[in-house]
This record gives sequence, structure tokens and C-alpha cells, in this order.
Amino acid sequence: MVNELLDCEHNLKVAIKAATQQPCPPLLAQALHYAIFPGGARVRPKLCIAVALANGNDNPRLAMMAAVAIEMLHSASLVHDDLPCFDDAIERRGKPSVHSAFGERIAVLTGDALIVNALQQITSCGFYDGDAQRLALVSQLITQGVGAPTGICAGQAWECEPTVDTATYHQCKTGALFVAATCAGAAAAGVDHQLWQPLGSAIGQAYQVADDIQDCIGSSAEMGKPAGRDAILGRPNAVHELGVEGAVALLNSLLNDGIGSIPHCSGRDLLISLVEKQSERFFPSGYHRRAA
Amino acid sequence: MVNELLDCEHNLKVAIKAATQQPCPPLLAQALHYAIFPGGARVRPKLCIAVALANGNDNPRLAMMAAVAIEMLHSASLVHDDLPCFDDAIERRGKPSVHSAFGERIAVLTGDALIVNALQQITSCGFYDGDAQRLALVSQLITQGVGAPTGICAGQAWECEPTVDTATYHQCKTGALFVAATCAGAAAAGVDHQLWQPLGSAIGQAYQVADDIQDCIGSSAEMGKPAGRDAILGRPNAVHELGVEGAVALLNSLLNDGIGSIPHCSGRDLLISLVEKQSERFFPSGYHRRAA
Repeated sequence: MVNELLDCEHNLKVAIKAATQQPCPPLLAQALHYAIFPGGARVRPKLCIAVALANGNDNPRLAMMAAVAIEMLHSASLVHDDLPCFDDAIERRGKPSVHSAFGERIAVLTGDALIVNALQQITSCGFYDGDAQRLALVSQLITQGVGAPTGICAGQAWECEPTVDTATYHQCKTGALFVAATCAGAAAAGVDHQLWQPLGSAIGQAYQVADDIQDCIGSSAEMGKPAGRDAILGRPNAVHELGVEGAVALLNSLLNDGIGSIPHCSGRDLLISLVEKQSERFFPSGYHRRAA
Repeated sequence: MVNELLDCEHNLKVAIKAATQQPCPPLLAQALHYAIFPGGARVRPKLCIAVALANGNDNPRLAMMAAVAIEMLHSASLVHDDLPCFDDAIERRGKPSVHSAFGERIAVLTGDALIVNALQQITSCGFYDGDAQRLALVSQLITQGVGAPTGICAGQAWECEPTVDTATYHQCKTGALFVAATCAGAAAAGVDHQLWQPLGSAIGQAYQVADDIQDCIGSSAEMGKPAGRDAILGRPNAVHELGVEGAVALLNSLLNDGIGSIPHCSGRDLLISLVEKQSERFFPSGYHRRAA
């Protein structure tokens, strides 16, 4: 399984190399590379591939391109989220954000090109595999996680409304791409994607709680981005509502729910161990995962 | 043929209705609709469908969804192009630009969502038609016209470079989506798309010259956007180089080249008459088309 997950990094390199080849304007080419490498934990693409592997992964190219697309779309959302008109974040992943390093115009275009080139990865699979329905389903699941009315763009747009339902906001802005990751992994492997929605949803919620905890008690250096932003921006945060102990308990409970929801499949045990391993980093130092 | 072209407007409405349904945040929903309706001349989607029709159009859904996607992608590029960090345009199509009407944040997200939902239209065809290769080819041709290294994003990014080759700039920023329109129309109908590249390229260049002429001698009211921007922004303009007479002669010559390049196909005469009709509006008042 480790080889397949490392292969995701290789395929991200191939995708960015194609996007930045001649005659790509030099600044856009640099910014596209900068936005993707070095990456974060690559949680979403790993989850997508892990679900496909747990279900036999009989179309590995489609699962891999779905994973690559998901990571490129996630990165696009970070680049646009950091723009001056949104979070005006000067740092991301421990280095200047794309707009800090390359200017606002290149940052807008980097996000745009990452979206286009991400979705190009998925449809490229049609040249190799004749199953148009499976391709269409994987593509729909991923675009639903990003566009309107339920994806990241919609989630971000809730920040522009006078009133927001916090659950809907988080579900769109953070949860939707995790749901896309598990569902696209399942659909790429030809199994019922709906059974994999609860795992994506639970991990998405757990990730949001982990982010809330980090924002409150993490240092900016640890996070690679400024801490304490939720309080400054008046955003809902689980620690503000439940305290650190309560938020950690919620995190444990969400992970237990997610793992409990994993359907019967050939690679169930391996998938559970992977989810457990990946989620270790959700916990702040001094706190540990308590499995059900 | 008229019915099929009108149907494009209907399918744009269906696409925007799907994108803006519950639970889409209200401002984003309004802005998505506002960016597409009422539209411009819909030159690109009409060209895409006309090429498919001229070639038998045996997969009309794929041709239509390609056309719809192309118009949504074009509109997305206008919304982002008008942003304060680029052209800072306050008007577009005779009304306030999206960022003037809804703010910069919603304008960024409207462009993003239009890109995602446009590409979603194309892959949705895979649920109805099993030809994954044709779907993949149409999708690749369109994404090549929009992303990096050769599409609209790349064209726009040349504006951020210290030196620019004017031909490359216009080819990416304006020409690429016209080439995508003719090539995707041909590919949707299952014929060799490469034969249709010269028509798209010539119309794209003609459109750019028409835009240059309008920018120099049109009024802001006629254009629905501010006139004289090229001189203010120091951009290359065919009228500055050739004078109005010279630019009109170039326009005529480009259209003759394009029409002359149209390959043998069942609907060649009808297509030529449509291109002639559409291109009438490229000419300023007092000047007329001179066919070869």
C-alpha cells in the first residue's frame, strides 16, 4: 500500500510538469509548482487511494488521477482562500503564501489553472479505459465536492453571507472534499460510493475539529500558518464552545464513528490501520487517540 | 440549425439552475446567474455546435454540453479578468461587473464555481453515452483552451511577465477558447478535430482584431464596457499598429482564411453562412465584410 501512496507524489509531479511546460509563462509555472510542492500531509489523496485499494482497486489509473485531482483542487482552494480579499494570509505550509510570493494576479490564476488542470487529470483516464460511466461518476463526485451548490466554493461563499449555519458551512468548506475522496475512491473501484460517504464525512468533521484545536493551542511555527485566526475573524471554533478536553473527546468520537462506518470490504483492516495512523497527527501533544 | 443554437440558452439555464439550487449560498447563487444572463453574443458555443452540426452531430448531448461548458468558462474568465487586481473593470455587458455588484470575494468564487461546474457538464455526458474516448478528447480540448500551459489562464498570466510575445499572448488569452470551440465540436461529432484548428484560430484572431477596433473607435455604451482601455493599460492593439483601414483589412483577410480552411463536410455551406452572419458584428459601422 505504501508504494501506491508514494506514487501519488510522482503523479502530482507529472501533472504539474505537464501544466508548466513550454510555453507556460514563467511566473505562473513557478507558482503552480510552489503551490503543490512541498506538500502538506496529502491526507485527502491518500484517503481516496486507500479506499480504492480496500475495494480491490481494479482501475488504479482512475483512482490515482482522482487522488491527484483532489489534491490539486485542495491546493487551489488554499491559494484562493489566502488571497487579500479573503483571509489575507501571508504564510501557508511554513512559507509565504502564493500571493505573498508571486502577487495577487498570479495567485488568482494559479488557483484557476489548478482547478482546470485537476479536472483534466480525471478525464484523461477516458483515453485508457472505456468505462465512461465510472469516469463520469468519479468526476461528478469530485466536482460536487468543489463547486456549487455544495462544494468548497459554496462553503467559502457562506463567509460572505450575513448569517451562516455552522454545520452547513463546515460541511461544504471542509467536509465536501473528504466525502469526495472516500466516494471517488470507492467509485473508481466500482463499488457503491454511497456506503463510503459516512467515513469521508466523519474524517472531514474530525479534521475540522483538529484544525480548531491547532488554531487555539498550536504555535504558528508548528502549523506553518498564523495561529489564533478564528478568534480574530470571529469564526466558530470547537475549542471556544467545548474547551480543549471537550474538543479532543469530540475528535475521538468522530474518528470512532468514521471507522465504525467502514463497510465490509477485502482491505478493511488495512484501511482502518491507515486511518488510525493518519489521524494521530490530529491530536495536540499530550493528548492521544482513544479507539472505541 | 436555429433550434439547436437556441437550445444552448436553455441548457445554460439548466446548468445554472443546478449550480444554484439549495443549499447554495444566496449571494453566490445570484452572482452565478448574473454572470451568465443576459449573455453576450454566445459566439463560442454557437461555433462549437455549428461545427458539430456541419459534421452530422451524432452525439448531440456531448456537443451541447461542450458548448455550455465553453460559454461558462468564457464567462468565468471575464469575471476574473474584471477583478480589481487585473483590469479593475466596473462594467461588463452594459451592467456593473460581478465584483462591482457582489464584491471581490463573491467574484473570485463565482469564477471558480463556473470553472468547476462547466467541466462537470462535460463529464455528465458519460452517464448517457459509453464512448469514454470521445468524452475524454472533448474534455481535453476544452481544458487545454482554459488551463496551463496554453489556455486562457496562461494568456492572462503573460500580463504579469516583464516581456510578452503579442502573438502568444493573444493565442492563449483569446484564440485558445475559439480553437477549443471548433475542435470540441468536431471531436463531439467523431471527426478529426485537428482539421478544425485553423477555423478556430482564424476566428479567434479576427475576434481579437474586432475587439481592438471597438476599443479604439467604439463608445463605452455600444460595447457595454469602458472604451480606450488598451491605450490606458499599454496593451498591443491592431489599430495602433495598422490604423482603422488596415485593421479592417486584416479582419477581412482572417475571416477569409478561416472560411477557406473549413474542411469538406456535409454541412459546409450552412456553416459558412453562419460564420459570415456571426462575423457581421465584428465590423464597425460604415465598414463591411469583403468575402474572398
